[in-house]
Amino acid sequence: MAARGGRIRTSSNSIDPNEDPVAGLERVMSSSNLQDSARRRRRREDELLFSRQFDDSERTDSHEALSARYESLNYEVSENSLYREAEKKPYHQMTLWRISRNRWLVCFLIGVFTALVAAFIDIMVDYSKDIKFNWILKYLISKCGEEERGTTAGCMWTVMIAWIGYNCLLVAIAAMLVIYVAPIAGGSGIPQIKCYLNGIAIPEVVRLKTLISKAVGVACSVGGGLCAGKEGPMIHSGAVVGAGISQGKSYSLGIDFGVFREFRNDRERRDFVSAGAAAGVAAAFGAPIGGVLFSLEEGASFWNQNLTWRMFFSSMISTFTVNWILSWFNGRSGWLSWTGLANFGVFEDKEYNVWEIPLFLLIGVIGGVLGALFNYLNTRLTEYRKIYVSSKLGRLFECLLVAAVSGFLGFLTIFAVDDCQPIGVNPTATSNQINRMWCKKGEYSAVASLFFQNPEESVRSLFHSPINSFGATTLIIFSIEYFLLTLWTFGISVPSGLFIPALLSGAAWGRLFGIIVERLFPSITGIDPGKYALAGAAAQLGGIVRMTISLTAICMEATKDITFGLPIMLVLMVAKWVGDIFNEGLYDAHIDLAEVPILGWNPPKMSRNILADRVMRKDVVALERRERVSRIVEILRSTLHHGFPVVDRIEESPIESLPDYGRLKGYILRSQLFKLLENRIFVEDGSSSNLPADFYECQDDDEKSVISDSTCFFRGHYEKIEKF
Amino acid sequence: MAARGGRIRTSSNSIDPNEDPVAGLERVMSSSNLQDSARRRRRREDELLFSRQFDDSERTDSHEALSARYESLNYEVSENSLYREAEKKPYHQMTLWRISRNRWLVCFLIGVFTALVAAFIDIMVDYSKDIKFNWILKYLISKCGEEERGTTAGCMWTVMIAWIGYNCLLVAIAAMLVIYVAPIAGGSGIPQIKCYLNGIAIPEVVRLKTLISKAVGVACSVGGGLCAGKEGPMIHSGAVVGAGISQGKSYSLGIDFGVFREFRNDRERRDFVSAGAAAGVAAAFGAPIGGVLFSLEEGASFWNQNLTWRMFFSSMISTFTVNWILSWFNGRSGWLSWTGLANFGVFEDKEYNVWEIPLFLLIGVIGGVLGALFNYLNTRLTEYRKIYVSSKLGRLFECLLVAAVSGFLGFLTIFAVDDCQPIGVNPTATSNQINRMWCKKGEYSAVASLFFQNPEESVRSLFHSPINSFGATTLIIFSIEYFLLTLWTFGISVPSGLFIPALLSGAAWGRLFGIIVERLFPSITGIDPGKYALAGAAAQLGGIVRMTISLTAICMEATKDITFGLPIMLVLMVAKWVGDIFNEGLYDAHIDLAEVPILGWNPPKMSRNILADRVMRKDVVALERRERVSRIVEILRSTLHHGFPVVDRIEESPIESLPDYGRLKGYILRSQLFKLLENRIFVEDGSSSNLPADFYECQDDDEKSVISDSTCFFRGHYEKIEKF
Repeated sequence: MAARGGRIRTSSNSIDPNEDPVAGLERVMSSSNLQDSARRRRRREDELLFSRQFDDSERTDSHEALSARYESLNYEVSENSLYREAEKKPYHQMTLWRISRNRWLVCFLIGVFTALVAAFIDIMVDYSKDIKFNWILKYLISKCGEEERGTTAGCMWTVMIAWIGYNCLLVAIAAMLVIYVAPIAGGSGIPQIKCYLNGIAIPEVVRLKTLISKAVGVACSVGGGLCAGKEGPMIHSGAVVGAGISQGKSYSLGIDFGVFREFRNDRERRDFVSAGAAAGVAAAFGAPIGGVLFSLEEGASFWNQNLTWRMFFSSMISTFTVNWILSWFNGRSGWLSWTGLANFGVFEDKEYNVWEIPLFLLIGVIGGVLGALFNYLNTRLTEYRKIYVSSKLGRLFECLLVAAVSGFLGFLTIFAVDDCQPIGVNPTATSNQINRMWCKKGEYSAVASLFFQNPEESVRSLFHSPINSFGATTLIIFSIEYFLLTLWTFGISVPSGLFIPALLSGAAWGRLFGIIVERLFPSITGIDPGKYALAGAAAQLGGIVRMTISLTAICMEATKDITFGLPIMLVLMVAKWVGDIFNEGLYDAHIDLAEVPILGWNPPKMSRNILADRVMRKDVVALERRERVSRIVEILRSTLHHGFPVVDRIEESPIESLPDYGRLKGYILRSQLFKLLENRIFVEDGSSSNLPADFYECQDDDEKSVISDSTCFFRGHYEKIEKF
Repeated sequence: MAARGGRIRTSSNSIDPNEDPVAGLERVMSSSNLQDSARRRRRREDELLFSRQFDDSERTDSHEALSARYESLNYEVSENSLYREAEKKPYHQMTLWRISRNRWLVCFLIGVFTALVAAFIDIMVDYSKDIKFNWILKYLISKCGEEERGTTAGCMWTVMIAWIGYNCLLVAIAAMLVIYVAPIAGGSGIPQIKCYLNGIAIPEVVRLKTLISKAVGVACSVGGGLCAGKEGPMIHSGAVVGAGISQGKSYSLGIDFGVFREFRNDRERRDFVSAGAAAGVAAAFGAPIGGVLFSLEEGASFWNQNLTWRMFFSSMISTFTVNWILSWFNGRSGWLSWTGLANFGVFEDKEYNVWEIPLFLLIGVIGGVLGALFNYLNTRLTEYRKIYVSSKLGRLFECLLVAAVSGFLGFLTIFAVDDCQPIGVNPTATSNQINRMWCKKGEYSAVASLFFQNPEESVRSLFHSPINSFGATTLIIFSIEYFLLTLWTFGISVPSGLFIPALLSGAAWGRLFGIIVERLFPSITGIDPGKYALAGAAAQLGGIVRMTISLTAICMEATKDITFGLPIMLVLMVAKWVGDIFNEGLYDAHIDLAEVPILGWNPPKMSRNILADRVMRKDVVALERRERVSRIVEILRSTLHHGFPVVDRIEESPIESLPDYGRLKGYILRSQLFKLLENRIFVEDGSSSNLPADFYECQDDDEKSVISDSTCFFRGHYEKIEKF
């Protein structure tokens, strides 16, 4: 149970959360029926207890902090008498049917709008690339003159500065959106969605302004040449779309369309958010099944057949709509056959044999180790950043620095590494002018093609290029540089995903692995570095995020092929096992860094023998079934709890120092209390009782209240209550 | 709660199950502490109540019967003090790790052995086809002489009789295996697996003799030319493999390997059965993701991330092993790239456009209506069969009749329908001699190719043959005949699946639909009947079985392509919605016909307002915490209940006619009571109490028993208890 302000620190050797300064007051308030003297005694004891525990908390490790800012979502259906009465009415079946139809309608809309956002992001990135290549570079290069290139580097510096300047401009827009408009839009958004799906109310995570900042921001940061993917933000965008459409209103705009009122509760919204996240994955990777499995794997605390089917529907509609929009954008309107945004190309005519399985397993081990290293370094960096780069300007400056270094490093590498390949060796390489760089005519720079292409295109060329398209040196340098840049980028204040960068550096070292295997066993034919690049990509990503089922499905669907299903699965499994030896997945690490009190799927190892009474507080802020308004107001003022247990009685116990609470009768939410007070739903005369002002609460229990028809009256105001 | 013998009939207008004849006795036994006079009074009342209710039950509809043969599986972990102590031991983490490792090992073995069984079935069917075509037909046709054919039909009758005789021989083997060895092996096995996964103990469903009967039987029934698929039985086989390997012993053989003892409980076995079922789907369709989704959809009452991942592992290993064995069988050893058993071929270069969506929806509607019709007719037929074809010889005769009629009808159709196509029009058609039939040289009979090919090959040729390969008449006649034969075949006493026959008749009318669309809109190009055949196949199957998510995934994986994901999903969704208007899915209908008391995912419509106290009996056979051995023995003798609630007290209540039970303290299983009695774990002297023989039971509750160290002692014997 969270308390006012501050943090609850859990020490590393005890599960009991320590008390906070106002606890003494609260505890005393529980015992309203006790004599004054007893109260004073308890207060003293509580204060003593608190001061002792406060001393303890000074010694605890700040890593273990959990923030009290977060509260749980409310998934419970209050099955009170009003609810049951509504169920008995003759037209109730009709209402249920209408709600069910609306659920499908909303899922359809979620699919369509998620796809629109995803397509918007993709088209924006495309335009940004167009501007960079066709306007800036063409203009500058044509100004430099054809004869200068290849001999002097002077003109190239001009190009580089223009290039970096343009990148910095875009990244600045992305950073300012995150820093000044919606801080929650930073990063990939997957940790936040994971928390939300597991029942934690993260403030502002599903707001319209978050969506806009995220969509525009990620287009800018990817367009600005950062080592960032657009897939994670697309998933977050899908989740926001899901929440927004299902509620039929927007806080950010202050608009209420007055539709879908029946879905205005946490329970229904959670379902639509999961459908939106699935639709986001489906749009990003063209992977509808992967999307459903992603939502199930990340929000694994619920499972519902009908919901899963609706999630699948959203995902399919989303992929369909993306294909429609992009087919229209690319001039083949109405052609719906599959492409997907992150299309990694089909592995045609590629095979693998039994003896290659150990090699794939080895790639899995490497991926697990590298992933664990990535997570360790990124966690340390994020902690450092939290302390030393906390001001808004500082964060903006860091973003610009990353953008500049990313661009500079690319140029530097092209300058340093001489990997010119004749055009024609690799038919998949795009022959942009920039790819030529310092190379002779009829050649192109393999390094430049890796650094300056669209990241998805780079992944594709690492997967499908012929054997000698990339030199070993190029691959080593590129994978290390990209690994480090991704490490630095993930966590700065711009919207940025991790999927594509991780896949890219993994594909690079995977391809290198393939080349090494080929050199070691020259007698064996059929070793194609492309499939090792695929395995490496999966291993690197799996080692970082530690997802399993959904990632396998996504990889299979994104390569539009199930031939490599088994190797991908083995690689991901080994990468997860190896990585889990060292630390947890990056998303979980970032959830911990954000101090979110998430309950994971598996209990912590040592908690197996610990029973609930050892981790729960015994002295709670409880209410009796009839309470004075003054005490309610006092409690609401002095605590931040979102709900209060309602008990039989709060009486001084002769044996223990804690009051005797009797039995638990139910639970009432802060929002419900607010609503009751706001509507003045309480009795002002004291005729039926010895208390001057009575207060009747709703019980899930069948027990009759004194004024029976006021039981659960607030149910009718439920929608208004939701506003709080 | 089930009672001795007989059935509990639920009337259509009341939820309360009626009492059965021994109920009076049982109820009285609950009130062991009451005076004799009160007992007599209660007995009289109970008998009166019973006789009244028995009159009611005479009027109830026999459709609503639930059999008392079935009891629940026990998924609860008894968290008693012995269990908690074991958890606190220092080496407990090690034990957990070992168990976890063994789980993966078992899942690996399940994948391998399921694949072996699937490959065995496939190879047997292949050999049977070889014998039929290459030995019998070749011999007979060569004897008839080349010149006779095409002009006289006389020799063809000899061929037909030999053909039908061979079919009948194989079907007789299949039928005798089912009728005399393992009755549970009949049919597809999916309804039984669905019940098992949802927690109902179906006797013998996961025994070795069931597996052998199923595997050999399905090879014979498919090889014998019945309209039966091998996929459902493969799924059932996988489930048996899952149960068998995880238990490390066999009842049928009486062997106990002494391994995996930690998995000898219903909870663990359920998990492995679901992994086995997933592996079965994966082997049958080459669809590992489809397999996982199948297990989740059918056994939807549990969801566990780790289990899902292990199921996926089993599925992958299974597909991998099948490919390995078949690549070895087909002479390309070690080549692991995907083929799968039920390979429907890749839809290459096929596209669809937005305006085709309504056509797909229409196919979905047709599929839903036809599926509902199929279910209605098959249910009626099965009821009829239960009454009139109940003797063993009668059932055997029916199987032989179906085999003979299936073969005869095929020949008759070929004779009657003149659909000779020049060889070369359809490159996918196999040019077996049998396919020529009455056709001229250089032509083949399209009808014969549909009837006498492997069903999977027929599906493939309906999907991928060029536009004019099949005449409209052929398709109409074939689809009607196959629909009716499938209808008749599903439910006879042979192992037979439904997937491929349903796909086949659906593909036929789907292709016909495509041809009609083409004739109606001759101006539109690009209408390929193949994709409508795919949609029709999905619609027909979806309309019958009403599966959604898993079927979409299976169809996508079996066609090795995700292009048609959206149409398949829409078709399946519409087919399910339309079908659900008329009746329930075929598997659910057969579960009802078998009188299995399954609790579906969705509650029955009108049960929404009904609370537990209206459907539960109030007078239960309960135990106190200390009971006489004599009463325990009496209760075990006179009831068939698998468990008994343990209550505070059983005392006469002054107000109600039922005894006052106090509070529920826990639940003890019949198997646990047996074990306690068997090991004589009870106290024989009466020193600590006024009862001559005391009996201590285990409580999940913390309350201390009189002899505290005997609490939960039976936990140590848990493995032995499992034998019951």
